[in-house]
Amino acid sequence: MIIVMCPDASDEQINHVIDKLAQHGFGIHLSKGVERTVIGAIGDKSAIELSALQILPGVSEIVPIRKPYKLVSRELFKKDTIVKISDKLKIGSTQPICVMAGPCSVEGKNEILEVAQIVKKAGAAMLRGGAFKPRTSPYSFQGLGEEGLKYLALARKKTGLPIVTELMDPRDVRLVAKYADVIQIGARNMQNFNLLKEVGKIKKPVLLKRGSGSTVKEWLMSAEYIISEGNKNIILCERGIRTFETATRNTLDLNAIPLIKKLTHLPVIVDPSHGTGEWDLVSAMAKAAIAAGADGLMIEVHPHPEDALSDGAQSLKPDTFGDLMRELKVVASAVGRRM
Amino acid sequence: MIIVMCPDASDEQINHVIDKLAQHGFGIHLSKGVERTVIGAIGDKSAIELSALQILPGVSEIVPIRKPYKLVSRELFKKDTIVKISDKLKIGSTQPICVMAGPCSVEGKNEILEVAQIVKKAGAAMLRGGAFKPRTSPYSFQGLGEEGLKYLALARKKTGLPIVTELMDPRDVRLVAKYADVIQIGARNMQNFNLLKEVGKIKKPVLLKRGSGSTVKEWLMSAEYIISEGNKNIILCERGIRTFETATRNTLDLNAIPLIKKLTHLPVIVDPSHGTGEWDLVSAMAKAAIAAGADGLMIEVHPHPEDALSDGAQSLKPDTFGDLMRELKVVASAVGRRM
Amino acid sequence: MIIVMCPDASDEQINHVIDKLAQHGFGIHLSKGVERTVIGAIGDKSAIELSALQILPGVSEIVPIRKPYKLVSRELFKKDTIVKISDKLKIGSTQPICVMAGPCSVEGKNEILEVAQIVKKAGAAMLRGGAFKPRTSPYSFQGLGEEGLKYLALARKKTGLPIVTELMDPRDVRLVAKYADVIQIGARNMQNFNLLKEVGKIKKPVLLKRGSGSTVKEWLMSAEYIISEGNKNIILCERGIRTFETATRNTLDLNAIPLIKKLTHLPVIVDPSHGTGEWDLVSAMAKAAIAAGADGLMIEVHPHPEDALSDGAQSLKPDTFGDLMRELKVVASAVGRRM
Amino acid sequence: MIIVMCPDASDEQINHVIDKLAQHGFGIHLSKGVERTVIGAIGDKSAIELSALQILPGVSEIVPIRKPYKLVSRELFKKDTIVKISDKLKIGSTQPICVMAGPCSVEGKNEILEVAQIVKKAGAAMLRGGAFKPRTSPYSFQGLGEEGLKYLALARKKTGLPIVTELMDPRDVRLVAKYADVIQIGARNMQNFNLLKEVGKIKKPVLLKRGSGSTVKEWLMSAEYIISEGNKNIILCERGIRTFETATRNTLDLNAIPLIKKLTHLPVIVDPSHGTGEWDLVSAMAKAAIAAGADGLMIEVHPHPEDALSDGAQSLKPDTFGDLMRELKVVASAVGRRM
Repeated sequence: MIIVMCPDASDEQINHVIDKLAQHGFGIHLSKGVERTVIGAIGDKSAIELSALQILPGVSEIVPIRKPYKLVSRELFKKDTIVKISDKLKIGSTQPICVMAGPCSVEGKNEILEVAQIVKKAGAAMLRGGAFKPRTSPYSFQGLGEEGLKYLALARKKTGLPIVTELMDPRDVRLVAKYADVIQIGARNMQNFNLLKEVGKIKKPVLLKRGSGSTVKEWLMSAEYIISEGNKNIILCERGIRTFETATRNTLDLNAIPLIKKLTHLPVIVDPSHGTGEWDLVSAMAKAAIAAGADGLMIEVHPHPEDALSDGAQSLKPDTFGDLMRELKVVASAVGRRM
Repeated sequence: MIIVMCPDASDEQINHVIDKLAQHGFGIHLSKGVERTVIGAIGDKSAIELSALQILPGVSEIVPIRKPYKLVSRELFKKDTIVKISDKLKIGSTQPICVMAGPCSVEGKNEILEVAQIVKKAGAAMLRGGAFKPRTSPYSFQGLGEEGLKYLALARKKTGLPIVTELMDPRDVRLVAKYADVIQIGARNMQNFNLLKEVGKIKKPVLLKRGSGSTVKEWLMSAEYIISEGNKNIILCERGIRTFETATRNTLDLNAIPLIKKLTHLPVIVDPSHGTGEWDLVSAMAKAAIAAGADGLMIEVHPHPEDALSDGAQSLKPDTFGDLMRELKVVASAVGRRM
Repeated sequence: MIIVMCPDASDEQINHVIDKLAQHGFGIHLSKGVERTVIGAIGDKSAIELSALQILPGVSEIVPIRKPYKLVSRELFKKDTIVKISDKLKIGSTQPICVMAGPCSVEGKNEILEVAQIVKKAGAAMLRGGAFKPRTSPYSFQGLGEEGLKYLALARKKTGLPIVTELMDPRDVRLVAKYADVIQIGARNMQNFNLLKEVGKIKKPVLLKRGSGSTVKEWLMSAEYIISEGNKNIILCERGIRTFETATRNTLDLNAIPLIKKLTHLPVIVDPSHGTGEWDLVSAMAKAAIAAGADGLMIEVHPHPEDALSDGAQSLKPDTFGDLMRELKVVASAVGRRM
Repeated sequence: MIIVMCPDASDEQINHVIDKLAQHGFGIHLSKGVERTVIGAIGDKSAIELSALQILPGVSEIVPIRKPYKLVSRELFKKDTIVKISDKLKIGSTQPICVMAGPCSVEGKNEILEVAQIVKKAGAAMLRGGAFKPRTSPYSFQGLGEEGLKYLALARKKTGLPIVTELMDPRDVRLVAKYADVIQIGARNMQNFNLLKEVGKIKKPVLLKRGSGSTVKEWLMSAEYIISEGNKNIILCERGIRTFETATRNTLDLNAIPLIKKLTHLPVIVDPSHGTGEWDLVSAMAKAAIAAGADGLMIEVHPHPEDALSDGAQSLKPDTFGDLMRELKVVASAVGRRM
């Protein structure tokens, strides 16, 4: 931590800051520049809220030096983490690109079985589908709950595809963990810290979506919550951030993919369905995500998008999804990956 | 709902849309313009996801006409809601401006008792303080939990000030409700829908903070979640949104105050501490909030901000808070309100 | 400037950075922490692009210490600047609140004369009106050009109100300066640096609007462009920034008012018409702006807003403006200012 | 244009709106729904500011139906525009991917000649370099002006590479047009409408960068300014938008690529150097841009980035650029394009 003093800070003010730092156990490194004095606080005391020192007279700015996350940081663990989902399926590093596909919500038994067959045939490695749905409106379809989980399990049985589904409530951790192969923490719950702690306590892989209003740093801090409880099976998922641009539902932040690869050892996938909100932009962005270095994709597929109970506008029809899977294979190969 | 067709949409495409609407029970109103056909869908079917119709060939855009919220809407209930906190304390409409003050976190028994006396003496109507703290880092102070709630209750007993404190987890609803006079739903949980449903089921007043990445419309939809479960004792709280400007911690959106007054009958207060993140901007923005029409304020006060376990940089010292309370009285009076 | 090295930076990498700094004439201050080495570059060399050092191996981050602006900084000039517009009219410091009012565009001779009388009668100190209009669409009304300037001059002659009008093109500096008392640089031209240089070369007061996508720091840098050419008669104008919130045209950033007062000695006013985009939010935000500490206001007034050629939706009718002026007087007095 | 009335709008209010529309020459289409009346205004009157009708009593919302741009719209011109830069070089449609590379600024004769040889050898089709530089600070290097243009022309002569360089000032149109093969309008000048009109009057191809705070719709409106003056040789360039994410310099909005392809017939390229701001993210995003469907790239290359006078942190070294060009060839081929 570096404390930058105002140009006209008095010796008394400088000494007051130094005393405060010493009182918290920090070593001091003083640097008197042409214009300002800069004080370095040396030591590893992440629990101390040094930002509060900003309130002291004569302080101009507090500059943190250390990254706030540790266990997820590539500075600490240089080797790529590979998350094992089943004996046959792993994500991350040089593993094949993993495509998770399926409807936004599980809408019924026949429907999910139909989609499962379709995405399996097209080459998807996992089935997605929500049984618990975080909906902006209390009057929208809220998901089938446990019934939906059972249908997902049935679809897995019929197709062999592992399933990923969302957990919204700490009270449902065991229930969802009983059915899911990967537990999804949705964008709206990225900073639901108690939920993060709960999934940190189990060993099941967690898909952590980025909050639409959250920075990459906060996203990694949320992953740190999970890993600090003991679960390091974390897959990050970029799904678009909220910006001033409203022509698309979200702004898919693909910059985050190479950035995440630099900052952390965890695998990262992309959800171009939520990232664009429009089905006819999904294929282009799926290919872009792979070219940018993503380890996988999460794509919404629905046999009849115009009748979907949620997110129909961004869902691919089976044919379009089939075409996309063929195109993805070529792009993956162009960047040295397999499907 | 209005469906705008592409300029070159065929009759077949137009008829397909009409059939879909009829199938969902909508009345149809067709308008052929110079360039385009526009189809009005008449009827009240909020559960239907008409946005998915966007995927149909020939459709250019779907324009929703109805507001997505109902019970919170001033179109439905024209009269200001007044939330009763105690026999003596009410918020909203022509009630006096309500100032809630106290530390970010409850840090200890003596500390909270001291602050309670200070803010009471300065004229605050309620005591704030967090026992459960949503912190970005798992390594930061996470709050004292029930112990903190007990200290708050003790401070209430000593000062008579009602207390407002945050609820983070649906499993803690009863616990927090046992101690709190007003239950705070924090910005990060504004779209924690299960939590909203839980506080909707009790009668205790709820302070609903706006999510830093949430629109006013989404904020009102979250209030709709609470009210649709039966609890209409909702106080909205603007606390700043996240924008590209990083010179302040958040961008306090005071536009939202007159806008909220127009759209809903619920009372709204402002938190200039989180809204600015810097103590020396808090007083100016507290006054601006009252001038803009807010029904109250939530302000962080700490006897020794530089030693605070959280949010020290944005906390007022007792003296500054006392000065502010005197200034607020004059501003409130200038806009026809009392303290 | 501080250069933070990676935890595993080698001595060779550290020495390479030190050599580069020495080569540019900087003094060096080395600090070896527990985890990282931090290098302070001492000296005043603002022309050097030290940020490029980030590319050197082993460098983790570059942290600038000095503020990038100088002449506009309150660190350098502590005393409030007062901008003199006429013998009777000054803005800034303890001068009376200055209200500039009038139509968005000058639409015709009779119309501007009518508005000028109206706003003068209501107590405005200046007349606003655009003759050159930056319009998003090439098909929208582009302003009357010099004809509009002449009508403004006529309105000034009839009412005695000084006029403020926008300059869009460096080729028009002399033309606009001939008629205007204050030259407005609009939000879209805040970083039109050649235009800034031109108005820096004359002595006429400049109203510098904040760009809707610009930070406070960039805004001050644009003021620095003007002042570094010799013109220190600068009035800053906050008019709302672009955020994800679309319920209002812009998000009025009133945080910027006390922040600007802290960072610079220049006066600052607020434009709640553009800041909200809706006439029925303007009065609340005008009062909030004054309570936050603004030195003045710029407000759009039109006798028949529904027929306005631009910005009708955000223009006040004469009666509403009259009411507002009466209310503002009380609010100004509540924060120790006069009108 | 559709005017949505409030649920409680009176007949008198509805008739007032109808009268206003009729007065402006619009045909009327009235639709009385269950809750609200909706009025369709039929006719093509883009010059009328119907948004001002929002101010009329009883009006809830104004919904525009027509796209505000015409000549750039794919609805009007379905065929891809191909921009011809030289006899050998064309951009757009099925033309080869065009890579424009070079330093941020022209820093000197030898330097630009050296870079030109490097990028030509690596396979770039054009040379970029700024002679007029829009810099945030008046104290930063402002470019070499005409001298820089001459060096660029010399580099073209030596390598045969056409040159693209920025125009900042309407007074310099002829000067820049004399040297440049493509005139760049920078992000900060995207809404410098007088500048747009000037480049609209000549035939030289224009590279129109998206403003960092501008929507896709506004970007297309700026292209409409150019095309409406007669110049249809426009190449759009996405270079990142400003969001709350500060881990990268900008957020590269690749969603815009397939969106632009849908909305307009103009070619679009991507600048991953400004879009990321960090050299080690550039290659990943360059590949992603091509996979998303871009027609070309603009990439900053500098022989010694750590000594660059501007944008060193985001410039590629010659070797990295060479590697990237080889990788791009494979990705381009994977999406059916050539280099």
